[in-house]
Amino acid sequence: MIDDIRKLIQQAAETARRETSDEPEPQFTGDVKYPVECQVGKGLEGAIATDTKVGYVNGAKGWLVYRGYDCFDLAEHSTFEETTYLLFEGKLPTRRDMDAFEEQLRGHRQVPEAVLDVLRRVPIDKTHPMSALRTAVSVLGNLDPDAEDTSPAKEKRIAVQLVAQFPTLVAAIARLREGKPVVAPRTDLGHAENFLYMMTGADPDPALAKVMDIMLILHADHGMNASTFTTMVVNSSLSDLYGSVTAGVASLKGPLHGGANEKVLYDLEEIGDAGNVPAWFARARETKRKINGFGHRVYKAYDPRARILGPIAKLITDRDPGTRKLYEVAVQLDHLVTSELGQEKKIFPNVDFYSGLVYRAMGIETAMFTPIFAVARVPGWTARALEYLADNRIFRPRAIYTGPVSERYLEIDRR
Amino acid sequence: MIDDIRKLIQQAAETARRETSDEPEPQFTGDVKYPVECQVGKGLEGAIATDTKVGYVNGAKGWLVYRGYDCFDLAEHSTFEETTYLLFEGKLPTRRDMDAFEEQLRGHRQVPEAVLDVLRRVPIDKTHPMSALRTAVSVLGNLDPDAEDTSPAKEKRIAVQLVAQFPTLVAAIARLREGKPVVAPRTDLGHAENFLYMMTGADPDPALAKVMDIMLILHADHGMNASTFTTMVVNSSLSDLYGSVTAGVASLKGPLHGGANEKVLYDLEEIGDAGNVPAWFARARETKRKINGFGHRVYKAYDPRARILGPIAKLITDRDPGTRKLYEVAVQLDHLVTSELGQEKKIFPNVDFYSGLVYRAMGIETAMFTPIFAVARVPGWTARALEYLADNRIFRPRAIYTGPVSERYLEIDRR
Repeated sequence: MIDDIRKLIQQAAETARRETSDEPEPQFTGDVKYPVECQVGKGLEGAIATDTKVGYVNGAKGWLVYRGYDCFDLAEHSTFEETTYLLFEGKLPTRRDMDAFEEQLRGHRQVPEAVLDVLRRVPIDKTHPMSALRTAVSVLGNLDPDAEDTSPAKEKRIAVQLVAQFPTLVAAIARLREGKPVVAPRTDLGHAENFLYMMTGADPDPALAKVMDIMLILHADHGMNASTFTTMVVNSSLSDLYGSVTAGVASLKGPLHGGANEKVLYDLEEIGDAGNVPAWFARARETKRKINGFGHRVYKAYDPRARILGPIAKLITDRDPGTRKLYEVAVQLDHLVTSELGQEKKIFPNVDFYSGLVYRAMGIETAMFTPIFAVARVPGWTARALEYLADNRIFRPRAIYTGPVSERYLEIDRR
Repeated sequence: MIDDIRKLIQQAAETARRETSDEPEPQFTGDVKYPVECQVGKGLEGAIATDTKVGYVNGAKGWLVYRGYDCFDLAEHSTFEETTYLLFEGKLPTRRDMDAFEEQLRGHRQVPEAVLDVLRRVPIDKTHPMSALRTAVSVLGNLDPDAEDTSPAKEKRIAVQLVAQFPTLVAAIARLREGKPVVAPRTDLGHAENFLYMMTGADPDPALAKVMDIMLILHADHGMNASTFTTMVVNSSLSDLYGSVTAGVASLKGPLHGGANEKVLYDLEEIGDAGNVPAWFARARETKRKINGFGHRVYKAYDPRARILGPIAKLITDRDPGTRKLYEVAVQLDHLVTSELGQEKKIFPNVDFYSGLVYRAMGIETAMFTPIFAVARVPGWTARALEYLADNRIFRPRAIYTGPVSERYLEIDRR
């Protein structure tokens, strides 16, 4: 039979050659969905992936808008729960909507014991906490008998559940990393409060809970970043939302994406003292070293999130002398970089520049910064994935082939 | 302190408003990497994501080329191991290269016991086998102390290891689903042979091993499909390759991508008899029902893989009367669709039309078709992710915002 197989492959190849058309390669000639001039750079920069009503970043003006609402207003007045409702539903909730939505979130906080068992079965203190989170989300999918139902109603339910469960997963990972027992969620606390409670095992300081709430609000959505885009791409094959969010976690993990605020902290520690900033900065420019936490592909103005987090970092480091010194280094560096590069090169601090400092002052381990980012970004990932699903088309861009096309196959001993 | 926080957010908002620039939103004005005319449709159709030397699909001519070599030649002469080497290294191996590469692959077949423990901890007979595979790959990453080293040499080592381990994972999932003990890999068998051995626990028929080898070769790479693109997008944030491949698995799982050959089989079973084809087809056209296994976004000619798999399906169903009837249904449907829609609408059978039939005739459970697809596609995913990494830029396309921008925030009781 193996000879038969060989023969029929030869026949198929002959038929293919005989029937080969001389038509040019098909170019895309369908409806141009986005008839704006669209020039595409490396990393799909400039390519338009979709239209959206979820959120908007205006990089020239330094605007961050969720469903029409400015992030400054939301940071001042809203809660993460309300912001999540807004991102999902497109409007702010009435009191009654809010009560129902909060009850739903609180009811979903528990995670099945099997997820914790899996986290205990892997070397949790050695693996990257984002890799542990990636596994945990995937296992959540394995445990949900509804995972394969990709109807909009079910996906919405799963999205809300994931928003509720991410703090539980991240807190469990943080505790297990330190060899501490996992703290079960409480239903009498707000989202940020309960998250801090599960991380520390103690009732959180209301001010710290407020700061965490603001951090979560400010990181809930941010345009078509790589992890949001990843979540949408996976979901567009009608894969299940657990898989799409698992992929979002994998994407956010990368140091070019979620890992930037960790690096800022390492820089600040390396500088050590505000007095060392000018020399460090001069050397960085000389050696063309990347200065972490500055510049952004989208923002050509001061990142609005950094405008809020800078003063919050000041306020919160006041309570913690250990990080106060790092804050002073950060402010010096901010001034120097902004005055030297701000006007000329449109390089300003981005959200990552101050966020690590805020987390540090809250007593959070550096490795947990990106998982907290994930806790915040679930609404953005899932709101956009669900929005795309309503008018879905699988993502399939092109590649330009630059290799040879008619290499001759030689048997191995003739090579 | 909460009042202080509110105040400083207000101040930040004021500063932001004062400093808002009137410049237009920044358009992409950098180097246009691909200065061809590029019109973008829904799902990024037409957008150029990268250039590549790994593989090439010419949809007009019906060509599938890996590193310059025609898929007909590779299916006839090569092995999956050699094809993998080709995709990674860009050239066919000498005998010595091949021996070393095969030894490397065989040495990596084992998976750590913890991965199997995790698969035993989830409801393996209830979760989708692709979701189980997604978890297993993520856990492999948790167990590898080198996972965070994203240097090209380490990523290459991990890629080869994943190619070697995927059959072990998929066979373990297939066995555990049926409540059977996991079969450990053997090092004295070829890749396809060992895969079938681990699935069945018995020495495989050489002809079936050859067919499996051809299936793996023909599915090893296929342009910028959604799962390959997903793997590249995740890897572009410098996330680890385990995470990137986990995301690839999540993407391939979707019924719009890897799940298509399952659906073909359900259709064939629904038709039941070759005599029913004309009536079924007429009704399908009337009701505008999608006919699975036909048409392809890229191929406007007969899919070269289907040219090979059609005759292989004929050959192999001869040995298995149970699927012979389904094959006859398939041939009838192929003729009818191709004669009615082929010339006019360029709709021909694609790879999925015959592949499910081949697997069925080999005695493989329908739910395992997509996991086998994954076993085959690891080289394509990783070869392209590694190629992109060599000249990396994080993927970040744009979205067009179509929502409002200046909604006024009202306190909840005033809504």
